[in-house]
Amino acid sequence: MQDMITMDLNVDIAEGFGVWRIADDDALLTVVSSANVACGFHAGDPGTMRRACVTAVRHGVAIGAQVSYRDLAGFGRRFIDIAPAELVDDILYQLSALRGIAAVSGGRMTYVKPHGALYNAIVTHEAQAAAVVEAVRLFDPSLAVLGLPGSRWLALAEEAGLEAVSEAFADRAYTPEGTLVSRREPGAVLSDPDVVAERAVRFATEGTVVAVDGSVVAARAGSICVHSDTPGALSLVKAVRSGLAQAGVEVASFR
Amino acid sequence: MQDMITMDLNVDIAEGFGVWRIADDDALLTVVSSANVACGFHAGDPGTMRRACVTAVRHGVAIGAQVSYRDLAGFGRRFIDIAPAELVDDILYQLSALRGIAAVSGGRMTYVKPHGALYNAIVTHEAQAAAVVEAVRLFDPSLAVLGLPGSRWLALAEEAGLEAVSEAFADRAYTPEGTLVSRREPGAVLSDPDVVAERAVRFATEGTVVAVDGSVVAARAGSICVHSDTPGALSLVKAVRSGLAQAGVEVASFR
Amino acid sequence: MQDMITMDLNVDIAEGFGVWRIADDDALLTVVSSANVACGFHAGDPGTMRRACVTAVRHGVAIGAQVSYRDLAGFGRRFIDIAPAELVDDILYQLSALRGIAAVSGGRMTYVKPHGALYNAIVTHEAQAAAVVEAVRLFDPSLAVLGLPGSRWLALAEEAGLEAVSEAFADRAYTPEGTLVSRREPGAVLSDPDVVAERAVRFATEGTVVAVDGSVVAARAGSICVHSDTPGALSLVKAVRSGLAQAGVEVASFR
Amino acid sequence: MQDMITMDLNVDIAEGFGVWRIADDDALLTVVSSANVACGFHAGDPGTMRRACVTAVRHGVAIGAQVSYRDLAGFGRRFIDIAPAELVDDILYQLSALRGIAAVSGGRMTYVKPHGALYNAIVTHEAQAAAVVEAVRLFDPSLAVLGLPGSRWLALAEEAGLEAVSEAFADRAYTPEGTLVSRREPGAVLSDPDVVAERAVRFATEGTVVAVDGSVVAARAGSICVHSDTPGALSLVKAVRSGLAQAGVEVASFR
Repeated sequence: MQDMITMDLNVDIAEGFGVWRIADDDALLTVVSSANVACGFHAGDPGTMRRACVTAVRHGVAIGAQVSYRDLAGFGRRFIDIAPAELVDDILYQLSALRGIAAVSGGRMTYVKPHGALYNAIVTHEAQAAAVVEAVRLFDPSLAVLGLPGSRWLALAEEAGLEAVSEAFADRAYTPEGTLVSRREPGAVLSDPDVVAERAVRFATEGTVVAVDGSVVAARAGSICVHSDTPGALSLVKAVRSGLAQAGVEVASFR
Repeated sequence: MQDMITMDLNVDIAEGFGVWRIADDDALLTVVSSANVACGFHAGDPGTMRRACVTAVRHGVAIGAQVSYRDLAGFGRRFIDIAPAELVDDILYQLSALRGIAAVSGGRMTYVKPHGALYNAIVTHEAQAAAVVEAVRLFDPSLAVLGLPGSRWLALAEEAGLEAVSEAFADRAYTPEGTLVSRREPGAVLSDPDVVAERAVRFATEGTVVAVDGSVVAARAGSICVHSDTPGALSLVKAVRSGLAQAGVEVASFR
Repeated sequence: MQDMITMDLNVDIAEGFGVWRIADDDALLTVVSSANVACGFHAGDPGTMRRACVTAVRHGVAIGAQVSYRDLAGFGRRFIDIAPAELVDDILYQLSALRGIAAVSGGRMTYVKPHGALYNAIVTHEAQAAAVVEAVRLFDPSLAVLGLPGSRWLALAEEAGLEAVSEAFADRAYTPEGTLVSRREPGAVLSDPDVVAERAVRFATEGTVVAVDGSVVAARAGSICVHSDTPGALSLVKAVRSGLAQAGVEVASFR
Repeated sequence: MQDMITMDLNVDIAEGFGVWRIADDDALLTVVSSANVACGFHAGDPGTMRRACVTAVRHGVAIGAQVSYRDLAGFGRRFIDIAPAELVDDILYQLSALRGIAAVSGGRMTYVKPHGALYNAIVTHEAQAAAVVEAVRLFDPSLAVLGLPGSRWLALAEEAGLEAVSEAFADRAYTPEGTLVSRREPGAVLSDPDVVAERAVRFATEGTVVAVDGSVVAARAGSICVHSDTPGALSLVKAVRSGLAQAGVEVASFR
């Protein structure tokens, strides 16, 4: 008898604010295993966050904190040169807010995934990466952290004794070096459900990805991300789940 | 041998935002026994909140959540006709944020005191009072709640099984009916340290206050509040503490 | 030869914020004659406002200021008990912002229509109605103002010498008294394009509306409003325009 | 008969928000000739802006727009990597807001001085400097712009045909190369009124400054700035004005 292969599938959730919506949270939460819940700084008003947590709990989806720079107008997509000490406090505030909302919803916040420009910055920005790690460590060292393989963020998190989980992107093109093709390049974002699903299966079963030049490169992932803020997001996520199922891979939280 | 009388002394803390300050938190926290810490909706950025909590812990000051309408521009002093269900979520978010910040600071959030227009609204606004009570009950029914004696807020909190603590205002004039003289009336706010201290002593030792017409009326209080957002606030608070000490009253948290 | 009848058709525009959208501004602006452009307080970041103004200018659509309480989280839909003097300043700021953006876009801001809870409040709230009128008068008394017939807002505006324009709602049910059926009642909002179009034609050609009890009541309107923040908004607006055309009514700004 | 020498003296004004204050605007506006009025993005609510404009008009002080990144929590002191096209719109919005508020106050906005991190960024950040220039040019090319001598901001402004005015800092230490000593270095900020006044006189009468190594370097200035957000700001500004008067230099707007 063979062990079942499992793979985590994460999407961004609660990225509306007030009347505004950007994704169909209710539907997405029936498909994925991990929800990166916005915490109010780039998106996510308290009501939206709570509904997301309640729905995640109902479907057995893991709840993670999608922490961000404070930037509603820019959706957290603009680098902010915030002092590391202030960043620690901003992250602590967001982790606190979501942990409480998750608890009231009958769930538990189990991991942290930085959002947008902060996610990108701490791939290389040592001081900000260290600040986010410090915040997580101070707050609750049992939280896992999710991020880009090879990033300073994951390296420093591991050094601090945190569980670091690498993610791969099923809807993004990869370079032969195993990094993401810049969004400014044509073909950087994939939108064909079959293609995206096939890549997810390869991540899960082989730990590889086919790069833009056709070469096969390593892409170890403890979680697969599909972006939720595009019109066809729900179809992509469903295709990934169904593709994984056909390949004998169970979608389940990495924890 | 006689039991020591104790009385809680509470002030608003962390009511700055970013570079802006409104009170000398560090000094106030060496004098009072309870700190109503702003949670980010009317004031209180994460850094200011954390510094307040760390300082409160150092001086053994109890930490309470000063929850508010979301209104930085109006400092939470304007009534907002928010739907009760949304108010529940806004309060949950603020309680969560402060609980986490307090914990990271080595302390514990033990009570809730609504701020400004929300404080005033829930004296009579049944639906909003019930919403704040519901939020506290959902979040942590072991939290005490602080408010105006006779308010719907305290009555509903008691009905919900929460510990309800009445507060008296040492720096405000009272009517013969035992209610506060409106701030629009001359003489509504007292600023003479000796007068304010004398009133605090009377609250603590006799449970009474001298009203504007000279009559003595009942004013039972589990906590005495002095407003912290006026220039002479620190002197008033010090005068109250020293007056209480001379009258044999120890300043200590109500918990 | 007969004079062409004209009728203004207004919708809310620029009610997104940052990445968030709520309506298809580009499409709506090809159909209507007046755009109530959000000014940043309930919605409307600078980029969205500017694109709306540029598009409005391209299609010959009049630009009006959709001023609001400062309340992004509540989309301006919650009454705020702001002091009238502060409301004057908040309105002046919003009028200023849009006038400048409109001018840079090659257009001109020609009218003012309050949004949401402010719109509703100043139907009866004398002090806030007077504050908005005062702001418009101080800013530019040549601006027209749009509002509910019978409101204090329009009455005070007229007293102040402003051009006051009444609007009727093609997608809302009316009481036999000629007021709007509350949104809390079933059937308050109409969504059948044919019905909505027919009502618009009646407003334009007869100045009447069929109330919920079947009676025909007077409904004089200088402008017809269709709400833009519902999924079928564009179809409704197109149906209204086409219905009016078939009835020989030209859609044109009231100015 | 000799020509009177004149020199402009500018300070930041309206940098409070809601209940929060950071400087004594009323007093400062009796001493200076130019007020850099915050426009709401890093500070400056509408009421504070209007009071500042009214007071500036009363004392004959020139009104300039102190435009900023959108960052109340960081007081505009953190670099934000905003896309240039979005920065153009953000600046247009702020210019519009202040122009309208100034006009209602009986005054006229005549110049632009970027604030904080934006001021520093556009010394060298070509794309953001070009964006701010583009916004000013689109909005009103008759506006003067104030900034650091040698900055890309002033160079690009001149290329665009705008009147570019260099400023010198009376309360900052200079390097032998004529640049500002970093605030991270000891002695970077000067607080002795006599010293600050003497430097202002030297700027005005000789166009030079004594650098930290004692050498005298050129420092041509069309305006002298004293920072207003420090406790002793008012004394410094008064000392500068009085020192200039004794040296026969009249304080007057550069326009």
